[in-house]
Amino acid sequence: MYSGKISEILKREHINIGDRILVEKVGKRYEGLLMPRIEYGNRNCTVIKLDNGYNVGVDCKGAKISKSRTKEPASVREEEEFELGRVKKGLVKVKFDKRKPRVSIITTGGTITSRVDYKTGGVTSLMSPEEMLYNIPELADFVSLKIENPFSIMSESMTHAHWQKLAKAVARELKHSEGVIVTHGTDTLHFTAAALSFMLKDLGKPVVLVGAQRSTDRGSSDGAINLICGARVALSDMASVGICMHGTMDDDYCIFTRGTKVRKMHTSRRDAFRPVNDLPLAKVWPDGRIEKMQTVPKRSSSVAKADTAFEEKVAIIKTYPGSSPSIIDHYAGMGYRGLVLEMTGLGQAPTYGKNSWLKSIEKATGKGVLVCGAAETLYGRLNPNVYSEGRLSMEAGVVHLEDMLPETAYVKLGWVLGHTKSVEKAKEMMLTNYAGEITKRSLQETFLA
Amino acid sequence: MYSGKISEILKREHINIGDRILVEKVGKRYEGLLMPRIEYGNRNCTVIKLDNGYNVGVDCKGAKISKSRTKEPASVREEEEFELGRVKKGLVKVKFDKRKPRVSIITTGGTITSRVDYKTGGVTSLMSPEEMLYNIPELADFVSLKIENPFSIMSESMTHAHWQKLAKAVARELKHSEGVIVTHGTDTLHFTAAALSFMLKDLGKPVVLVGAQRSTDRGSSDGAINLICGARVALSDMASVGICMHGTMDDDYCIFTRGTKVRKMHTSRRDAFRPVNDLPLAKVWPDGRIEKMQTVPKRSSSVAKADTAFEEKVAIIKTYPGSSPSIIDHYAGMGYRGLVLEMTGLGQAPTYGKNSWLKSIEKATGKGVLVCGAAETLYGRLNPNVYSEGRLSMEAGVVHLEDMLPETAYVKLGWVLGHTKSVEKAKEMMLTNYAGEITKRSLQETFLA
Repeated sequence: MYSGKISEILKREHINIGDRILVEKVGKRYEGLLMPRIEYGNRNCTVIKLDNGYNVGVDCKGAKISKSRTKEPASVREEEEFELGRVKKGLVKVKFDKRKPRVSIITTGGTITSRVDYKTGGVTSLMSPEEMLYNIPELADFVSLKIENPFSIMSESMTHAHWQKLAKAVARELKHSEGVIVTHGTDTLHFTAAALSFMLKDLGKPVVLVGAQRSTDRGSSDGAINLICGARVALSDMASVGICMHGTMDDDYCIFTRGTKVRKMHTSRRDAFRPVNDLPLAKVWPDGRIEKMQTVPKRSSSVAKADTAFEEKVAIIKTYPGSSPSIIDHYAGMGYRGLVLEMTGLGQAPTYGKNSWLKSIEKATGKGVLVCGAAETLYGRLNPNVYSEGRLSMEAGVVHLEDMLPETAYVKLGWVLGHTKSVEKAKEMMLTNYAGEITKRSLQETFLA
Repeated sequence: MYSGKISEILKREHINIGDRILVEKVGKRYEGLLMPRIEYGNRNCTVIKLDNGYNVGVDCKGAKISKSRTKEPASVREEEEFELGRVKKGLVKVKFDKRKPRVSIITTGGTITSRVDYKTGGVTSLMSPEEMLYNIPELADFVSLKIENPFSIMSESMTHAHWQKLAKAVARELKHSEGVIVTHGTDTLHFTAAALSFMLKDLGKPVVLVGAQRSTDRGSSDGAINLICGARVALSDMASVGICMHGTMDDDYCIFTRGTKVRKMHTSRRDAFRPVNDLPLAKVWPDGRIEKMQTVPKRSSSVAKADTAFEEKVAIIKTYPGSSPSIIDHYAGMGYRGLVLEMTGLGQAPTYGKNSWLKSIEKATGKGVLVCGAAETLYGRLNPNVYSEGRLSMEAGVVHLEDMLPETAYVKLGWVLGHTKSVEKAKEMMLTNYAGEITKRSLQETFLA
């Protein structure tokens, strides 16, 4: 994993990954287990896991590296180097040149700013934004980053209130930066991407959401490349909200995908974020090459506004064999104003016998609840006219949302109902394309892309 | 589309697809619009759309084909040919040779036995099983089909009661046939495939589920090839329950995919049924070639039994930003015994603030509800140990189901709870591999395959 001079030293000292080593520099001393080098890290850095479970990158220029002879846990010898888990000095800290184009980075939590808590063995969100960057010196070559941290939360616990706060922070940062990067947990990254797509009006600059599927203390961490590519997008001419994550399992390039047409499709792979019913907007390489895959709105002087009104009384419901329509009554009874049904096939719900959903749908729509349909297959387009059963659900009041993803439909429904009290107006808005959430034509190559 | 002698006649008569034509045979007369030939149809057949909206295939041997001179709707001249929409005689009807190996075909409804109702424009389930086969004379070359029709229903309205009836019918037919084909609507075909996978014990022969994404009056109908390949599987040495549908958009081959590891991933494509976290069991060509892609249990003398006990009080619930845990209380209050949560990422649910799901999960599990977790990403494996939030959901009682599909997990949960009153036993059963629903290792090539 290590190359050049460091690898020579390690060889000479018979040091292997996992060995306890000692790195001594003028006035500094680090002891701990040698970790694999993180991809795209500084080539002159060794990564050491200290006994407090904290990984540090140490620039080895002018340092002496040797096998440690102590067996007992080596604590950090120079306490002043660390304070509340923050990197203070002596480590490879990225220094930005203010004359370079400025990009704002808004951190919100998630794996990309997490590390292993060696007490519990789990991963917790502890890292400071500065720490996240310590191992990515390449960023300083082409960008000056400004870091903001409006809140920290693991993404499965995000709510519309976080989206609103975030949209406002993004609009604020766009005023004085070339583009904005949002770092975020991957679990619900696609929901937030959809929320920002609807909430940011008159966008004239790029807004890039970036996460990591693997934590930074793993050799296979993807956070660094995603961030570097994200910064390339933030400086590009693409005025769009999208997710920038690994395009393949290799560390070759990332894909920048439209915020309303993307979904986490794998629990752990680095290339988990895939476009659905769409192509990526662009392929992005860490060195700055960008290959557009479709037409993207150009950067302009337009000043983005955060338009964040949101109705939180919305829900997603699955339909499936034996599913109980009582769930609709449950939400309607709780005063919900909008529901997205994940419907089967071309837009059906059970229509037969005691399991028929039609009555509950009719009752809800009669009360003014807006009931929409999206495809549980994820890929493809609804067409409720094909089967009598689809037509029955239309007659009961379901608005079928073309090829919109269920998750995007949910976010959009909350946003739309935050903007109007009229169900008719809301129906019209749900079928209006605001942020690329509905595509006119389905391209063959967008299936399982 | 037409070849050989028919294409010569069409050329000579200047007849194009869509023209109104007249086919006269001894004592018979058909008038209507010339449709494209259905793939794998009898090569000597023209397909004519009659004015009653009904497509018929007419064997043109000894027939006179000409352009029709009438403009007015041509009804069927020989009324006795049709009765209640059923094919009576004179059409190409498949005749089976009883000396050929016998396969049972159990029809249940769905597109494969549907056709357009020209009054409403929608597709309804009207076709008789015999009719379904009228255009697939190739079947008679290698198989003798016995047709059963225990019930007819569009698949979105199926329930566990249908699965039970079907499992019993399959077990019955397996006693005297080489294999069983089940034709079925595609909307919930994968649920039924999972149900039969669990309900059929000691399987020694193939059980093949087949559907059609396009109705038979469309040139692009896939039903015929799926059925032919399904019959090939039914005669094969693979003793497994699986779905046999188009492998690609072309009519080249089908894939036979394990019943617990398959999902409808597109609303309309013919190759919509894809393996998830698994490879297909085999590729199957209409001419009978079978290329296995993994080890499949071999045909044996084992006699299948239908083990159909099922608890219907089970549900699938999505978790997502802003989702209300009240839904768990709702089901627990209705006496539900099992819930499958579609969890985010590696197995998380919202854990923070008023939206936290932990309390409701704990309350339900405390009452004896079995709460399981499956991945809403569909692909990949849960690993709740990685994040503190995942560990919290485990502590609240969630049983994380490895790489099991949410839909499969739902069916399995109903089946497991139908077999035991003990929650501990049910937990153990949920994590036991009965029908390939859990794979030990995740293969890279199974992502978006």
